[in-house]
Amino acid sequence: MPIDPITPTPSAYGYPLLIKQLWHTPLATAPDQEIVYRDQLRLTYREVRQRVGRLAHVLRAHGVQPGDTVAVMDWDSHRYLESYFAIPMMGAVLMTANVRLSPDQIVYTLTHSGASVVLVNAEFLPLWQQIRSQLPGVRTALLLADEPTELPDGFAGEYEALLTRAAHLPDYEFPDFDENARATTFYTTGTTGLPKGVFFSHRQLVLHTLAVLGALASAPEQGRVSRNDVYMPITPMFHVHAWGMPFVTTVLGLKQVYPGRYVPDMLLALKQKEGVTFSHCVPTILHMLLTSPAAAETDLKGWKVIIGGSALTKGLAQAGLDRGMDLFTGYGMSETCPILTLSQIKPDLMGNDLEELDIRTRTGLPIPLVDLRIVDGQMEDVPHDGRSPGEVVVRAPWLTQGYYQNPQASEVLWSGGYLHTNDIGVIDRHGYLRVTDRIKDVIKTGGEWVSSLEVEGLLSRHPSVSEVAVIGVPDAKWGERPMALIVLKPGASEDVPGLTAIIDASAKEGHISRYAVPAHWRFVENIDKTSVGKLNKKVLREKYTPEV
Amino acid sequence: MPIDPITPTPSAYGYPLLIKQLWHTPLATAPDQEIVYRDQLRLTYREVRQRVGRLAHVLRAHGVQPGDTVAVMDWDSHRYLESYFAIPMMGAVLMTANVRLSPDQIVYTLTHSGASVVLVNAEFLPLWQQIRSQLPGVRTALLLADEPTELPDGFAGEYEALLTRAAHLPDYEFPDFDENARATTFYTTGTTGLPKGVFFSHRQLVLHTLAVLGALASAPEQGRVSRNDVYMPITPMFHVHAWGMPFVTTVLGLKQVYPGRYVPDMLLALKQKEGVTFSHCVPTILHMLLTSPAAAETDLKGWKVIIGGSALTKGLAQAGLDRGMDLFTGYGMSETCPILTLSQIKPDLMGNDLEELDIRTRTGLPIPLVDLRIVDGQMEDVPHDGRSPGEVVVRAPWLTQGYYQNPQASEVLWSGGYLHTNDIGVIDRHGYLRVTDRIKDVIKTGGEWVSSLEVEGLLSRHPSVSEVAVIGVPDAKWGERPMALIVLKPGASEDVPGLTAIIDASAKEGHISRYAVPAHWRFVENIDKTSVGKLNKKVLREKYTPEV
Repeated sequence: MPIDPITPTPSAYGYPLLIKQLWHTPLATAPDQEIVYRDQLRLTYREVRQRVGRLAHVLRAHGVQPGDTVAVMDWDSHRYLESYFAIPMMGAVLMTANVRLSPDQIVYTLTHSGASVVLVNAEFLPLWQQIRSQLPGVRTALLLADEPTELPDGFAGEYEALLTRAAHLPDYEFPDFDENARATTFYTTGTTGLPKGVFFSHRQLVLHTLAVLGALASAPEQGRVSRNDVYMPITPMFHVHAWGMPFVTTVLGLKQVYPGRYVPDMLLALKQKEGVTFSHCVPTILHMLLTSPAAAETDLKGWKVIIGGSALTKGLAQAGLDRGMDLFTGYGMSETCPILTLSQIKPDLMGNDLEELDIRTRTGLPIPLVDLRIVDGQMEDVPHDGRSPGEVVVRAPWLTQGYYQNPQASEVLWSGGYLHTNDIGVIDRHGYLRVTDRIKDVIKTGGEWVSSLEVEGLLSRHPSVSEVAVIGVPDAKWGERPMALIVLKPGASEDVPGLTAIIDASAKEGHISRYAVPAHWRFVENIDKTSVGKLNKKVLREKYTPEV
Repeated sequence: MPIDPITPTPSAYGYPLLIKQLWHTPLATAPDQEIVYRDQLRLTYREVRQRVGRLAHVLRAHGVQPGDTVAVMDWDSHRYLESYFAIPMMGAVLMTANVRLSPDQIVYTLTHSGASVVLVNAEFLPLWQQIRSQLPGVRTALLLADEPTELPDGFAGEYEALLTRAAHLPDYEFPDFDENARATTFYTTGTTGLPKGVFFSHRQLVLHTLAVLGALASAPEQGRVSRNDVYMPITPMFHVHAWGMPFVTTVLGLKQVYPGRYVPDMLLALKQKEGVTFSHCVPTILHMLLTSPAAAETDLKGWKVIIGGSALTKGLAQAGLDRGMDLFTGYGMSETCPILTLSQIKPDLMGNDLEELDIRTRTGLPIPLVDLRIVDGQMEDVPHDGRSPGEVVVRAPWLTQGYYQNPQASEVLWSGGYLHTNDIGVIDRHGYLRVTDRIKDVIKTGGEWVSSLEVEGLLSRHPSVSEVAVIGVPDAKWGERPMALIVLKPGASEDVPGLTAIIDASAKEGHISRYAVPAHWRFVENIDKTSVGKLNKKVLREKYTPEV
């Protein structure tokens, strides 16, 4: 349908959605607000913004042109925050290198991204010296160091010294350009294949910022962020823009605290000393914090922490709630910038502790502008009854528009015009999404989708079961049928009727499909796992086949 | 600088910022939330969204095509809300006709906008019948009525009956189109000349919605809106999209209450019965509510009301605060969609009642993405010291890109790439803007700008002064010099030294420029006013010239 766009008068400012525009409000309303790095440095917003200009001058002097890619290898620091702004604002692309990958993968991702300049924290020098010769595309390396450090061979300068040298220059003139220009890129690793690059434009990051801000701030009480909060990230800034929160907290003018490399004592000391009230982390970090000896000495009350990356178990959530923390789930992935949903509790569902715990550990409610559906194999919506599973597919203004230079995987990702999360979930009558499985692990049987995770959860309640995995195995009539692999507790016996009864009972109560009852049972000595300790269902599916 | 935009994979959804996208969240998270019309009707969000589809079917059946303009003449109603969505969502343009204009002006604005279909509230039938023959461009008129009404001649149908007839149809397929398509248009009237049309695109309205949401929700306490609030507009929906709030409250899924024609008793009864907690109005309406007999019987505690349109005086603000209301200022104009600033109180400035009152009655802090400057005649920034006046010029993603079919006025509005508000203001060290004058009334003397309003305020403190106006009069040496026009109280004498001393003292304390001392004094019998009782400075400037 041809509808003409408005015609602006020639002098009108079209206002592209560029990352630099996020600075207007904090500079106007909170220029003296603090940005803190560990116990080492305190800067104001005004100073950080000046340093962003200096960093751009430095990069320009080292040959960075619009469209070039500049990679950063650092822990969470004020320097990383400055890079989040300076690099995209000058029209270059920020590549956040994942320093936890293998050296080979780091070489692959830096090379694939086309990075020509790399900022390297001194802690990574051994790694850097190991891979440097494999990076012919990298023209310049700059050193990031907390303390004065002798410049190693092959480095063109040290960050702080270079910024000081640029201090006399007027502010960098950050230009206007197309809001759809690439601002950031980074890589996601699956269980198979090479890492894949995702990328986000200025427009996408600005819109993600506004929508996340709107969702976080508008919560009546639980899970709400205001201009009074103090922010400290505890997910690495090389992971999906630290969930976009440095942009959100900057536009709000919040006090920000950057903890460097994650050391539980340092994190808890900063939490206490700087009055941190808002963070985000993965369950593993939360567990580490709660069990750290220093945690017992620290007042955690009222600390709002979004948990993401993997599922927040009720046990871990309860441990945090018992300490007065306000824990809730955020859901998204590298491909989605990342935030799609937050498990904030609706006002009318507050007050019942059990229900609250249940909601906090769900996947959540979609944030503004997110069009989130659960669909069957024909892309038809499944009912929102809390039990019908479908694949989670989404549209939002901030989803990667493909994988970098990988057209085939890009088309699979966007098949049918929706981004496929490859997650299976259910939506309840209150609108909360609960992700129940990865699509590759779901069992498609008799036209229904059975969540392997849910069947595993049920079977694990049987007193004889030590470990359990459920996989789908091919079946001529049903497509697939569930197979249960069970490690028994020492001395326990193979109680198939008892195990079946558990699933039957759940199916009768309407919680699970009646097709969920395993058609095959295997009692095994051990179950194959991945290097990070997850069930390796790919191997299991290859290894176990039903008796014919 | 040529920076290439990202290249999306062919199947990727580009996600245009269209008004229809505001519906995703409320339908997913609050479908049963209520939208109430007076004491007459209660609908759910789900029902309103269905009715939006039906309205689009009805308009389509009456020949409305993408790009057509559909005008609405109604009080604040659920029907108006449905029109806010249905008309733009089908690709047509919503024209919100100002029913308070003169019949001639209404004819002019409807004609100039190109409206081909008009929705008319039965209350305006006498007016409509008076102007109908002068509107040859209007093809179809539809009736809006609260109660079953016989269809008058010349009307193609009645809203509710037409919607009922469309109830069997599947949802209207609202198409995707260019986010820069025009969504709304309406007219602004100055003291001189014909009304001028402003217009806003889908993109602009979505971005205004997100930024206003972010600013309102992120306030720590005072002036904060959450998903727990209940909304009732008390500025007409034909005035600048009711300040954009129906879009904001819809995306949040708030309960909404539409009061129809403003009757104090009805407004207060709805406030009480429906639990309204968030509104916005002009000072006149606030005054009317506070002095209404019903107000004494109504609990106003905690009612958040944004005041705009004209300055909120401290006296009126205090009267509201004394009743427990949370009053604060919003600033903007027809050309700006409208919101630019909100006078929410920063956390660190809370606690001092006098300072709070001062801040609540200021113009406010810019909301996210607003680039607001105060500049001199050369577009150079003036200091933010609370006393240096400059013209308020702005950039934001939601400013009208011109006046409709008026290229000359459009270029004046956007001269130098910033939208000129024609307001003069000062910014204090906390970042709060205070608008002190209209630019046409400011006195430009000796390279400085003197606010006529501020001089008037000072002179009015003299015990002999009954009324005062200050205007700029031409001066060969200084450009302009201030002239004071004073009506004395009965029996008072012409104390020029005493009057001069007041200004001198203020200048010595640094509150006002030393050029503010009037060079000319006229003691007069009366001062010319406009039809709405404001000082008519245009006439005064023509009438009074200095002695040569």
